This record gives sequence, structure tokens and C-alpha cells, in this order.
Amino acid sequence: MRHKLLLLTRENERYRSLLASCHLPELELLDDNPANIRLADIWLAEPGLAAPLVNHASGLRWMQSTFAGVDLLVKPRQRRDYLLTNVRGIFGPLMSEYLFGYLLARQREHDLYKSQQQQKLWLPGSYKTLQGSELLLLGTGSIAKHLAQTAKHFGMKVAGINRSAKATEGFDEVATLEALPTLMARADAIASILPSTEATRGILNENILARMKPDAVLFNLGRGDVLDLDALERQLRQHPQQQAVLDVFNQEPLPEDHPIWGLGNVIVTPHIAAPSFPEQVAEIFSSNYHKFLLGETLSHRVNFERGY
Amino acid sequence: MRHKLLLLTRENERYRSLLASCHLPELELLDDNPANIRLADIWLAEPGLAAPLVNHASGLRWMQSTFAGVDLLVKPRQRRDYLLTNVRGIFGPLMSEYLFGYLLARQREHDLYKSQQQQKLWLPGSYKTLQGSELLLLGTGSIAKHLAQTAKHFGMKVAGINRSAKATEGFDEVATLEALPTLMARADAIASILPSTEATRGILNENILARMKPDAVLFNLGRGDVLDLDALERQLRQHPQQQAVLDVFNQEPLPEDHPIWGLGNVIVTPHIAAPSFPEQVAEIFSSNYHKFLLGETLSHRVNFERGY
Repeated sequence: MRHKLLLLTRENERYRSLLASCHLPELELLDDNPANIRLADIWLAEPGLAAPLVNHASGLRWMQSTFAGVDLLVKPRQRRDYLLTNVRGIFGPLMSEYLFGYLLARQREHDLYKSQQQQKLWLPGSYKTLQGSELLLLGTGSIAKHLAQTAKHFGMKVAGINRSAKATEGFDEVATLEALPTLMARADAIASILPSTEATRGILNENILARMKPDAVLFNLGRGDVLDLDALERQLRQHPQQQAVLDVFNQEPLPEDHPIWGLGNVIVTPHIAAPSFPEQVAEIFSSNYHKFLLGETLSHRVNFERGY
Repeated sequence: MRHKLLLLTRENERYRSLLASCHLPELELLDDNPANIRLADIWLAEPGLAAPLVNHASGLRWMQSTFAGVDLLVKPRQRRDYLLTNVRGIFGPLMSEYLFGYLLARQREHDLYKSQQQQKLWLPGSYKTLQGSELLLLGTGSIAKHLAQTAKHFGMKVAGINRSAKATEGFDEVATLEALPTLMARADAIASILPSTEATRGILNENILARMKPDAVLFNLGRGDVLDLDALERQLRQHPQQQAVLDVFNQEPLPEDHPIWGLGNVIVTPHIAAPSFPEQVAEIFSSNYHKFLLGETLSHRVNFERGY
């Protein structure tokens, strides 16, 4: 066998059976004996499990991350002398389910009608449709593109923010971070799907949050440290008509004593907006492995400098 | 003035101001003096308010309904010697918001995560995506087409039922009512947007409901009498994993003592899935009025025989 694979996930057994059914010539699956950390030239790994070990992995040539978020692997002191690929392109529909599930629940007042049902109260209310409202997406990658398409389908206007303000399909308008204060003040819903990089950390700070419309809703779906959670808490206490829907946090699990758990205008979910399904990850790994064998360029390669 | 318009809605003042800003030559708005029932040749009216009066309306030539559902006006003993038009084409996006709001809330387990948040519990669960699941739509008109598009966008398969089994854009499969037992047994979500006609009344009966998958969800969004509500109640008591989301009822408001209010696996809403916005109705009326003036065919004309 030319190549040796180390599995480093919380679902190794699942991956073992999925990979067994793939055609993966010249590949030996190693068991998780610590000595194998040096022997393996290929890793299929969760960033959180891989990060503390990667500097000891003398044989490592390619790591396929099972997650999209690889910030733990691209920090300044981590080695960068191997190929790192992540998973992309599979999260858009899941993120749309999550974002529009909560956005529609708010817009169409699920809580109000549930409470009326409990009182056996037939009381048609006035309400707002999503049609004509504006969604601001921080990020314009494959996930953001799917969210933008969904928003357009529901008749929303869509603005996006990326590094270059490059026009992007499905967006009515794309600007750089400099336009964030202006766009923030105009949006009915805002969603960050930004990765964690030096350029993005903390950009949703007190001043930016203060620009939200009185009844705007903010989603954080990318990385926790893009958002100043304490500033958000203060903002939401002062503006009970605003809402935040948070799936990612600086510290996960979110500590039990964090006051954000208890705010009535916050929805906290445990990083479930768009999980990687092992079936899809195994498919990406298998496809990349064949490219690796042939010396071709791997898909979804991470740029260590850029950080994603 | 050649024509006299009677307004018969619960929002007459709203319509009065909207119509005032339209160009409607030769049209006099009458006040709601009972004598005007005979004078008016044109009505802009809610079916429930118009139905008891229409047989006395000796001058009536054209009625523009402010609702989509006109079953109260096409009953056997009602007169049929006038033009009846309703509103169509404006409800698709609203129905998609309603149906997919509740479908996503169920699929992505909003209640579970809300309860975990109340306990400050970080517990990512396994869940199912909408991708690959199947939606069965009873009806393939303009509303159903929008629902089908939304479902396809979320990666669902879509089957439809109509009178002729005519292939319809956006549907993977269209069949006649005869296929209902088979399609019912296969669908993860079922939605009726059928009008109330002799052919549709009571088709969601005990036998058909019994064919639902153990965790299927049923939406009734068209007309209440398409569904046997008592049979549904028995079905849902025996199958707590099934769910119904009901916006329309045989009797509205739904009587306070109806046991369906209290079922944990039923969501009752007060006919709010897709209300007519007066702005949109006024636009349809105005466009039709110009056709009426010119003797052209009106849009959205109701066929009294067919019943919609």
C-alpha cells in the first residue's frame, strides 16, 4: 500500500464503513494507535482534534478536513507544509433551511399564533411578508449564494459584503466591509457566514450592531468570533424588538452561565445549522483521493495565508 | 357616470382610498345605503358578505371578489347571470412563506432547540434535511406551482394531483385523484390548496388519512371542507408523530369547543396563510375595470359550473 490514512473524527466507525464501500486503491486505513500519527501521509480529520497533533505528524502530506471551518489549523504557529482541503458546496441548502426556518417563523409570527391556539383564540392579525424586505449577507461564497437564491425566491432584496465588492450572481448589490455601517442600517435581516480570519474577527462590534433597524434580526452562522457577543447582549436588552439567532460561538459549548442563553429575543442553537454529513464528506474525500493519486490539484484547497 | 360600484368588504375605507388614486373613468362609488344594492352594476365584494345579497342585486353585471375562494357564490341556488372574477396569482409567495415556515420549523426541530435553550443545554442532535423528501400537492394551480418551486429549491421531490393528470412545470409527477391513496402513502408532507367543489369535498377522509406515513405532516390551506376534521382528529390522536397544520376550516372561526384546538400535534391558525392585500386586490380590480369598459375578457373569471 502506497498511502496510509489516519482517521481523526468523532465518527471514525461511520467513516470506516463509508470508506470501505469506496474504491480507494493503494490506501491503508490505520488504527488510532498514537504511533500512527507519524506514519500516516493522509489524514481525514476534524480540525479541533487534528490541531494539537498536526505538528507531530512528520509523514503528513495531505489533510482533508471534515468541517468547513479550519481556523484552528491556519493559526500563525501551525505548520503549513502540507495540503489542507476542507468541505464546501454542501452546506448551502442546509443553511437555507436553518436561516429561512427561523426567519419565516419570526415573520409569520409562529409564537403569536401558538399562544392564541393555546387560548383557543381565532384572531387573524396583520403581518408583514418577506416580499420586499432586505437581507444583508456577510460573505458571498457558495453558502451565501444559496441563501441569496432562497431570499430572491421569497421576493427579498439581497445585498452582500466581500473583500472585493465583486458583483456576484444572485445579489442585487455587493460592497466591501467599508459599506457595512450603511448596509447594516438598511437591512431587515443580516446573516454572517464569514470564516474566522484576521479581517473578520470582531467586525460585528458595538458600533455596527447599534446601526441595526429597530426590528431587524441578526443571524450568526459562520464563526463565533466575528461577533462581539457581549456587545450584542447589551444591544438586544435595549432593543427588545430586535432578535438574534446564533448558531456559532467563540466558546463552544456556550458556557452555561452566559447571560445570552436567557434573553427572550435570542435563539441559541448548538452549532447545528449546517453539519457535515459523513456521506458527503466521504464523497469529497474519495474524489480528492483519486486526484491526489494522480498528482492533480485537489478540490476545496485551503489557502493558509487567507485563512480559508 | 356610466357605471356604479358597490363596495362590500370589511375594509371599505381602505379600498375607497386605494381606488381614489386609480384612474377609473366613468365610475361612481356608491355609499352602502341598502338601496344601492339594486343600483350598482359592479361590485367589489367579499364572498361571505355578497352571497346573501346577490340575488337581490338586479343591476349587477360584474362582481370582483376580493378573495380567491368563491364557493359561497357558486352554490347551486345562487344566480349565475353575471360575470364573477376572483383574485389569483398573488398568493403563491405568501403560501410558500406559510407552508415552508411551518415545514422547516418541524424539520429543523425549533421546539426541541427552544426547550434545550431554556435548560441552557448544548446538545447537537441528529436531524433530517428537507433534501430528498417528498411533497404532495393537491392542486396544481398558480399557488401550487409556487409551492412546487420552493420545494424544488429546497431539494424536495414534488408530486401533484389535478383533474387531468396534465404534466405541470415544476412537478416531478402529476396524477389524478385516483392515485391519491398511493401518493399519500409515499409523501413526507401533503398540502391541499384545493377549492371547495363537488369533486373535492371530503376527499381527505378517514381512509385516505390512514395512509399517511408515520411521521408525515398534512397542511390544509385551500378550503376546510376538503378535509374530514373529525377523522383527522382520530388519526392524529392515534399517531402522535404525525402532524397537521390547518389554516382553513369548515366553520370559521373554528368553534371554541372543537377538540382539534388542543391536540399537541396540530397547529391551528386563523385563515392567515395567504390573505388578500387590498393593494393587490385594487390593482386587479382596476385592471379588470379597464377591460370591462372596453368589453374585453376579464382576468381570473370564475366558471360557475366548475366552481372556481
